[in-house]
Amino acid sequence: MTEILSDIDIAKANTMHPIKTIGEKIGLTEDQLEFYGKYKAKLSALELEKLQNQPDGKLILVTAITPTPAGEGKTTTSVGLADGLNRLNEKVVLALREPSLGPVFGVKGGAAGGGYAQVVPMEDINLHFTGDFHAIGVAHNLLSAMLDNHIHHGNELGIDSRRITWKRVVDMNDRQLRYIVDGLNGKINGVPREDGFDITVASEIMAILCLANSLADLKQKLSQIIVGYTYDGRPVTAKDLKAADAMAVLLKDAINPNLVQTLEHTPALVHGGPFANIAHGCNSILATKLALKYADYTVTEAGFGADLGAEKFLDIKCRLGGLKPDAVVLVATIRALKMHGGVNKKELGTENVEAVLNGLPNLEKHLDNLQNVYGLPVVVAINKFPTDTEAELAAVQSACEARGVEVSLSEVWEKGGQGGVDLAKKVMALADQSSELSYAYDLTDSIETKIEKVVTKVYGGQGIKLTPKVKREIRELEALGFGDLPICMAKTQYSFSDDASLLGAPSGFDVSIQQVKVSAGAGFIVILTGAVMTMPGLPKVPAAERITISDDGQIDGLF
Amino acid sequence: MTEILSDIDIAKANTMHPIKTIGEKIGLTEDQLEFYGKYKAKLSALELEKLQNQPDGKLILVTAITPTPAGEGKTTTSVGLADGLNRLNEKVVLALREPSLGPVFGVKGGAAGGGYAQVVPMEDINLHFTGDFHAIGVAHNLLSAMLDNHIHHGNELGIDSRRITWKRVVDMNDRQLRYIVDGLNGKINGVPREDGFDITVASEIMAILCLANSLADLKQKLSQIIVGYTYDGRPVTAKDLKAADAMAVLLKDAINPNLVQTLEHTPALVHGGPFANIAHGCNSILATKLALKYADYTVTEAGFGADLGAEKFLDIKCRLGGLKPDAVVLVATIRALKMHGGVNKKELGTENVEAVLNGLPNLEKHLDNLQNVYGLPVVVAINKFPTDTEAELAAVQSACEARGVEVSLSEVWEKGGQGGVDLAKKVMALADQSSELSYAYDLTDSIETKIEKVVTKVYGGQGIKLTPKVKREIRELEALGFGDLPICMAKTQYSFSDDASLLGAPSGFDVSIQQVKVSAGAGFIVILTGAVMTMPGLPKVPAAERITISDDGQIDGLF
Repeated sequence: MTEILSDIDIAKANTMHPIKTIGEKIGLTEDQLEFYGKYKAKLSALELEKLQNQPDGKLILVTAITPTPAGEGKTTTSVGLADGLNRLNEKVVLALREPSLGPVFGVKGGAAGGGYAQVVPMEDINLHFTGDFHAIGVAHNLLSAMLDNHIHHGNELGIDSRRITWKRVVDMNDRQLRYIVDGLNGKINGVPREDGFDITVASEIMAILCLANSLADLKQKLSQIIVGYTYDGRPVTAKDLKAADAMAVLLKDAINPNLVQTLEHTPALVHGGPFANIAHGCNSILATKLALKYADYTVTEAGFGADLGAEKFLDIKCRLGGLKPDAVVLVATIRALKMHGGVNKKELGTENVEAVLNGLPNLEKHLDNLQNVYGLPVVVAINKFPTDTEAELAAVQSACEARGVEVSLSEVWEKGGQGGVDLAKKVMALADQSSELSYAYDLTDSIETKIEKVVTKVYGGQGIKLTPKVKREIRELEALGFGDLPICMAKTQYSFSDDASLLGAPSGFDVSIQQVKVSAGAGFIVILTGAVMTMPGLPKVPAAERITISDDGQIDGLF
Repeated sequence: MTEILSDIDIAKANTMHPIKTIGEKIGLTEDQLEFYGKYKAKLSALELEKLQNQPDGKLILVTAITPTPAGEGKTTTSVGLADGLNRLNEKVVLALREPSLGPVFGVKGGAAGGGYAQVVPMEDINLHFTGDFHAIGVAHNLLSAMLDNHIHHGNELGIDSRRITWKRVVDMNDRQLRYIVDGLNGKINGVPREDGFDITVASEIMAILCLANSLADLKQKLSQIIVGYTYDGRPVTAKDLKAADAMAVLLKDAINPNLVQTLEHTPALVHGGPFANIAHGCNSILATKLALKYADYTVTEAGFGADLGAEKFLDIKCRLGGLKPDAVVLVATIRALKMHGGVNKKELGTENVEAVLNGLPNLEKHLDNLQNVYGLPVVVAINKFPTDTEAELAAVQSACEARGVEVSLSEVWEKGGQGGVDLAKKVMALADQSSELSYAYDLTDSIETKIEKVVTKVYGGQGIKLTPKVKREIRELEALGFGDLPICMAKTQYSFSDDASLLGAPSGFDVSIQQVKVSAGAGFIVILTGAVMTMPGLPKVPAAERITISDDGQIDGLF
């Protein structure tokens, strides 16, 4: 048996290819790349327009069953699938999200796949990378500063400082900044008001960057951001503050997708990383579209389980970007299925076919949604763990067979692309089928109907509960002309329902809506079913305490 | 007469050379450069150790008379001098500070020289550049988050939240954040306390980055940062919070100097930009030292007038870095001398030899300091304006001749390097003289004596005034073992005295000290003679409102 190496050891043992070599694989000349060191580069988003008459490759969406503490390995599977396609000599690009810097110093560690299915250089990707998140942060905070500066200098627009909805951001887990009072200490130092900070990835600008179809579209979306309301209830936008162009200037490089590589030198566009609750949780439309132009297969993923990630990928990103996946990979693990079947985490090492069978309804509900709500061809990828038994795997196999769905055993964590070749072949066959994407709701549906359709069709719930406050919020948004926007559900990722403890495939539940608000720049209405943490804190012993750097620059403890 | 173009038009009309070509000029191979796009690259700070046995080139310091609203053109002269040396086929590197992003959106516009003496790409240099300031900001805020997190999780170190000296930072002119209360809204959201934000360039980490001699030294300095005091008065450091290594990890790229070019393709290292009041106002020691290894002439500048900039360059940076300038250029303009001679800004266009003569004592006092306090050879550079008359120039010429100091008429704004050839020749001759650097004070002097020596020897004052509070602060710092650090004077840049309205070369004044505090990481004691603004605000109509970007990415209104 081979020694088990850590992700970072595997990554360090790997020799990266120069990024210009990676670019060449998808037909990019050195001139079309902006290098950021030897192993990172930016592509120009402006190229997209020139390529508009070229045909698109196939789009493969990787999503997962409802997440459990057992782990699913969606990113790992995405990387391994791309490497599998690469091994089959297909022209493939991986299109992933960028990780957030702040959480690296908290509990989480890095996020760029795992085992032999990783994206590199992982240290850079997890730290400053090419500066996109810093640019988003400073564009966000420029708007904040211009907003308060406007109030300070006389408040010509009549902004009600009690109704400001635009907070500030910092790319750090800093609970101390969640709730603040600023503008203190007298007349020359601003106007006192309640305020707070979110972590940068929660910024609406992150969602905007990821949903923009061009630089012109980015500017347009930035100008529509609502920062608050006037004393007489009118929304105040970034356009009213004359801030949109300056913000776009700060984002001129960030809008360009980042090119890196997998351990097996498959080109990877890692770009954008919006929250998967208050935002849509997908990489940028521009990176996805460029990937489709440059490659025959684009492998991308969506956040959380398919009820949240795939739903938003399809109902928001695909709709706003004019995209359509040709095949969907639904990732599951035997361990996670057993947890959905009622087994607790400590007992996952023991064979338990009954628990797998009890957990399968979760998988099946997701399959049902993807096939019957959205009309897409699906393959199940079982991300293999050493403890999985033949009998457990057979149980999944036969349940899927009964539905006419293929299952692939993915061994990419252990074997890299070789462990993803079977999945790659099945995906290729699937993507050759013709299919038509349906959405879960129509944009012309009322906001309430949209929520109802997602809850009943996708979640399997019975209905929704709206408080009088929420009903008023909906009326207000419809009156302001936002009724035709798609909705962005902020719900626990641990259950189809809004109760994190309901595993498997619950039914008969209602989903209670707590708050409805618009992200007018991003172009969706956020439906909150509970409190969403938009500024994490550090644990008692933060990961930062264990991170070291030697005098010659070798980092340790980052992952 | 030729048409007068704006700085940005001149920069745009210029064709940059690929940065690898610029690197080749100083013997750097492509492998020794980390590209950031086609026209920016980072050098490795780690190279310095390998080069330690190679001889250093000559170091030229560019400083100026006391600044006035008329402008002096120190950066422009530095760029032009380097281009002049380049035209003489000398191997030269320019070593400048990085500008701050925040103020670009306020009043200021960019800062990278002017006319035909500029550093490019100016848009990038003035915006995110290579991300150094973002890295400094996030390293700073990581320490803030870890500090409050420590208090939140039980405060084992016994930190007195009323005596926290470490604020947070943001790279934005945001007066609203100067004074805040954070940690509000209950037990899970931190511990309420008074707090505030500085602009990123005011961070002590900026000063540390610029004073570090190696990565090891950077870590050491970071660990010594004092964030506050315990209930029993002991200092709490970044080391106590186990934060220093994680901060250094965030700075691992920022520590590497940035290579760009002048309009005439002279290599320029643009790296670091600490405040010139609460910090020492010079580019990084590492960039300067690398430049000395790579080039025969290194041209660098110091902030504000010579009383602040050159004093700190010599007494702090040279002392801590083991550096010594071979020649000093003192920049003046006829316009500024006339203002020191009592003329107001509107009347500067009229010939007034008497005003020039009345203003000369300012120039002469700076000359006297550089020659007699510090023992350095000096040349005066008159940055020429179209309104300067022969008689006015002759007045300066004869006053300097009388002291045995050469004067060069610098026409670099209008003519680029060709306009700096005369200055370059004079500088080369001067740098061949042998000289020995003396400091204004000894490190073993008491803090009070150090202040007194700077005030009486450099400023020409009579003495200093210390309040009982300041005396106590000095006693405390000496008791904590900080008595041997150099001092960093925070004084108005508009006068030799602490009264901004006293132009020329005042005498007989006392300097009142308002506060004394330690920057234990940077390694100096800050002596405040008045309030220092560490967080600017935006004007009523911020520059941001005028900045535009076209759909194909062309920026306008940035300068």
